[in-house]
Amino acid sequence: MSVPLRVTINYRVPYADTDQMHVVYYANYLAFFERGRNELLRACGHTYRALEASGIGLPVAEAHVEYHAPATYDDLLGITAWCEGIKGARLTIRCEVRREEKLLVEGYTVHAIVDLRTMRPIRPSPELKSALGCASCPAPSQSGFTN
Amino acid sequence: MSVPLRVTINYRVPYADTDQMHVVYYANYLAFFERGRNELLRACGHTYRALEASGIGLPVAEAHVEYHAPATYDDLLGITAWCEGIKGARLTIRCEVRREEKLLVEGYTVHAIVDLRTMRPIRPSPELKSALGCASCPAPSQSGFTN
Amino acid sequence: MSVPLRVTINYRVPYADTDQMHVVYYANYLAFFERGRNELLRACGHTYRALEASGIGLPVAEAHVEYHAPATYDDLLGITAWCEGIKGARLTIRCEVRREEKLLVEGYTVHAIVDLRTMRPIRPSPELKSALGCASCPAPSQSGFTN
Amino acid sequence: MSVPLRVTINYRVPYADTDQMHVVYYANYLAFFERGRNELLRACGHTYRALEASGIGLPVAEAHVEYHAPATYDDLLGITAWCEGIKGARLTIRCEVRREEKLLVEGYTVHAIVDLRTMRPIRPSPELKSALGCASCPAPSQSGFTN
Repeated sequence: MSVPLRVTINYRVPYADTDQMHVVYYANYLAFFERGRNELLRACGHTYRALEASGIGLPVAEAHVEYHAPATYDDLLGITAWCEGIKGARLTIRCEVRREEKLLVEGYTVHAIVDLRTMRPIRPSPELKSALGCASCPAPSQSGFTN
Repeated sequence: MSVPLRVTINYRVPYADTDQMHVVYYANYLAFFERGRNELLRACGHTYRALEASGIGLPVAEAHVEYHAPATYDDLLGITAWCEGIKGARLTIRCEVRREEKLLVEGYTVHAIVDLRTMRPIRPSPELKSALGCASCPAPSQSGFTN
Repeated sequence: MSVPLRVTINYRVPYADTDQMHVVYYANYLAFFERGRNELLRACGHTYRALEASGIGLPVAEAHVEYHAPATYDDLLGITAWCEGIKGARLTIRCEVRREEKLLVEGYTVHAIVDLRTMRPIRPSPELKSALGCASCPAPSQSGFTN
Repeated sequence: MSVPLRVTINYRVPYADTDQMHVVYYANYLAFFERGRNELLRACGHTYRALEASGIGLPVAEAHVEYHAPATYDDLLGITAWCEGIKGARLTIRCEVRREEKLLVEGYTVHAIVDLRTMRPIRPSPELKSALGCASCPAPSQSGFTN
């Protein structure tokens, strides 16, 4: 039994992210998702910069966002990202944005896993799956509970 | 027989929209969708600014984007928006981004139709439906062709 | 007697550009300036994309903005750009942002003129000066009026 | 003898901030400056959110940026902000962006200090000057050296 690695980073909302409705502009959450993915990869041992340097890219094929409640200026947000799974050459990363415990926004991005020289899809090796946060890993406890 | 109004605007991609992969950064398409929606409403007779002034808002509840091919710097894009439908107090707008005939990106946004004083959902009147581009309108010709 | 070419483009402000003070966020004017520069170069016969393809780049060395009055959502702005001059390998482009006749924001950017292979500065040829909008050009009329 | 409070925050550059020249797009540094200012005010005891809630705003009147060397994707930047001075109802904040010790970008913003109800300038009280990071404060040492 295993759970994927979940990584959470803190993010302080600047004025730059807000719009005239006094909330974070809806497109900016996709940049928040990117920040979460970056730190997920770093926590898995290889940065996205290193992945690209090794010739592998993860262009976004699909993005989906659900907006439950707005974030506002100067909020300290928690952005959480984890690998939902890999099918063939497609990687799905899920993200949540919270203010304290409250879930504000959630969604996912689907990425093609490509060889950057050819831009053709490649099936990830077990090592790459691990670097993408999608390897099975031991459950955090024997109790069977995961949070 | 009727078809919804489709509005297309031109948009020239600045350096500001690109990222280091030499393509438009994925979040920016949501801003393109917004530009399309703004012009759809204007073509329907009321700007979004006028809608807000009348006490009605359309906060985004959900967004979805599919990326088929990248747009690049200085591309002249066509951004097309149309109302897909209204269910209760929820409006769906679909968008497409093309370079000449080629479809690059498509997706949709779902909007809550709200009273801005209370932020509570409201069911749109026929007049409001029309202002949102979702009224039935006569087919552009008797021939049965629509483009 | 000569005047530099001045190019003005129209730009409609989306929600994306606003902030919670109900005005365009101050950093976005630098992207407006870029849009103006792009069209200035296009009007001079070579796009910035073509300049880069020929091996020449114009990285920004300095930017300055003065904010006189705010632009707001859905404003139709006029962005005007012109070449102020070239000294050695440095090009200065001035920009103004207006709503109808009213001057909202003005400023300039200073660009290094560089060989993109070496990133070293180069002194522009007369042809390049012309492509940058900085050649002397005949006054539009003998009357002494310029607009 | 006194020195102004200098506050430095760390910032990790996302893909979102880059452009196709593989560097941070030049307008984004003004958003970095804002992040620095926000933390300077927080360190002085009142957030900008609290300032606004008390009826005081700091709209930007002027911005200036000098670009010495580019920041790139995934760089961990240090953004430093401090109050340069107040003249009448005008506040100048200086900012520097560094990667490790290397100075990449520097500049300043000039802010009008305004009453948000009237948008008229106000001369700051000593308490407000202190909240803006512009109060005199004891030198960090008797040696006369400041860095």
